[in-house]
Amino acid sequence: MKRHTPAQTLFLSAQDMAAMVRQMGAASTLTRLADAIEADYVRWQDFDKCARVASHSSDGVIELMPIADAKTYAFKYVNGHPKNTRVGLPTVMAFGVLADVATGVPDLLSELTLTTALRTAAMSAVAARALARPNSRSMALIGNGAQSEFQALAFHHLLGIQEIRLFDTDPAATVKLMRNLQHSSLRLIACESIAQAVRGADIVTTVTADKTNATILTPDIIEPGMHINGVGGDCPGKTELHPDVLRGAAVFVQYEPQTRIEGDLQHLPADFAVTELWRVLRHEAPGRSHEAQVTLFDSVGFALEDYSALRFMRTAAQQLGYGQWVSLIPELANPKDLFSLIRPEAPLTAKAGARSVRRPELATA
Amino acid sequence: MKRHTPAQTLFLSAQDMAAMVRQMGAASTLTRLADAIEADYVRWQDFDKCARVASHSSDGVIELMPIADAKTYAFKYVNGHPKNTRVGLPTVMAFGVLADVATGVPDLLSELTLTTALRTAAMSAVAARALARPNSRSMALIGNGAQSEFQALAFHHLLGIQEIRLFDTDPAATVKLMRNLQHSSLRLIACESIAQAVRGADIVTTVTADKTNATILTPDIIEPGMHINGVGGDCPGKTELHPDVLRGAAVFVQYEPQTRIEGDLQHLPADFAVTELWRVLRHEAPGRSHEAQVTLFDSVGFALEDYSALRFMRTAAQQLGYGQWVSLIPELANPKDLFSLIRPEAPLTAKAGARSVRRPELATA
Repeated sequence: MKRHTPAQTLFLSAQDMAAMVRQMGAASTLTRLADAIEADYVRWQDFDKCARVASHSSDGVIELMPIADAKTYAFKYVNGHPKNTRVGLPTVMAFGVLADVATGVPDLLSELTLTTALRTAAMSAVAARALARPNSRSMALIGNGAQSEFQALAFHHLLGIQEIRLFDTDPAATVKLMRNLQHSSLRLIACESIAQAVRGADIVTTVTADKTNATILTPDIIEPGMHINGVGGDCPGKTELHPDVLRGAAVFVQYEPQTRIEGDLQHLPADFAVTELWRVLRHEAPGRSHEAQVTLFDSVGFALEDYSALRFMRTAAQQLGYGQWVSLIPELANPKDLFSLIRPEAPLTAKAGARSVRRPELATA
Repeated sequence: MKRHTPAQTLFLSAQDMAAMVRQMGAASTLTRLADAIEADYVRWQDFDKCARVASHSSDGVIELMPIADAKTYAFKYVNGHPKNTRVGLPTVMAFGVLADVATGVPDLLSELTLTTALRTAAMSAVAARALARPNSRSMALIGNGAQSEFQALAFHHLLGIQEIRLFDTDPAATVKLMRNLQHSSLRLIACESIAQAVRGADIVTTVTADKTNATILTPDIIEPGMHINGVGGDCPGKTELHPDVLRGAAVFVQYEPQTRIEGDLQHLPADFAVTELWRVLRHEAPGRSHEAQVTLFDSVGFALEDYSALRFMRTAAQQLGYGQWVSLIPELANPKDLFSLIRPEAPLTAKAGARSVRRPELATA
């Protein structure tokens, strides 16, 4: 599927993306996405990075997340509105763009609501592959909302997790998750409390949505050797972990300047030691140092994952024939002649008498 | 034209926008846009503002420009690649989005390449209405590229400019402008030099494209009482005016923190006095103090103009029936059930023996 003109943009709608992921399969999509993310994290120094730009309101936040390497620019638009479910809308909605650094042409416009859930789960799995004990088989999953199935499947397919211990303050969310994953080979166990879900788990994933400083995990329920995958604390004023949980762990982050503002890290002093994950993936910094160490990935979602996901989805769409070309950018015969788009037609007859009749609105107003 | 589902987005393509502006007429569009911009500048304090977020490369820049009031969030994506015309692409390309602050739903996705030219010209006219001598009739227009006709028409229709004195290093650009505006009632005079174009003009507009520290205007050619509308110096390392031109003038800006970085102001000390235009429009600060004073609008393009333009264009599209609904955001029966988009269908028969045949890819991979 070729574009017809140099400034057209491939548009992947929400329906396109859902159909494409169904065709590829969730396991394959998550595995390939994780590999794409890891490959980009390993070339961390190639990217022009900044913390995302947030616009906060009483009920939520709207953020822009740009990033670029020498060839490709990407950004994501994403919101977070925990009360949205009351009006039938997702809490998190997103879309994004890939553009050519050399010309600025937006090459791809894509839905990113579904894709964000996939890439967040793939990112968590990339971190856990590097940090959790290799023989991890059981995971607690606290928060069974929109992102939870994706986390469950990513840890199942990429880390070999076989049992997931579920808890949500809304029992209907847990029932939904169990129904959605009933045909997987995961053993799903609904628990009565966070403590019960966490007890004995190798990995603890928190993916709750409230925009509050919550305390989902306290130090007393954390066991030696656990890996904590903290996903839901991702915004100023939106945290999940008691500060002592971080103090008792080796803490790993995506991009330190952003996580200090947004992550569970926001409650700790500016000099609290953390390690950026890319250094572990490049073997430039240690990950887990011993079997009994608690490791913690304070995930907030970084623009690089969206860059990786947009590029992966573009390639998949080109291979599988999804999407349509749209004209976000005008087509110009002479690029200096933007005005040609709205130029009134010249008079059909050049005779003086006829001109006033067809004199364009421009000249008479 | 109503949307079918709560999360659909109205898409205004480049063709839609061109057709809509042709239908409304350039004069009417510019006049109404200028009024919309002025009305929003007067309520300056309602907006959550920040300098735009730029990603620079050797050949250009890609920027995101977000802004919000309590109800509406807007952002623009815009590039600046002066060499683009060599490969048949516009130097500046843009698109943008309006979103609902209460939910984060992206309501409008619109082309903004044509619209940026219109809103930039309308903004210049808003500033000149407040700053130029009221009897201004003649304007020098230095740089006759993509934005030039829009500036000419805005000053013609909104300020009563009758004569425009043209100069461009590329004579073909001047010829293009004269051809495009031949049916207007403007008197168009091609000049041999910048100095010749500027001599005797009431207003001097510079709208050149090179990403260099150029010196289009020098103090020796500036005459008492002139209003300078400096549009092309809008990026670090991209300026048009000799610093002494600014020193000899009362300087007005859109949003001081951004103009200090991007405008011609970047060559002056941080304490060089400027006035934000909204204060003049609200009559909280003086504009021109006397007939012989040189006034200077150091325009860089601010997110608020795009907010105004996107809202204006959305209303116009709704009234005139332009655009189409697209699904950037998925439709979910249960907003907590994002996974339903990719859930493999349940087995048609619930019998144990039949399950393995239809066992979804999720569970087997």
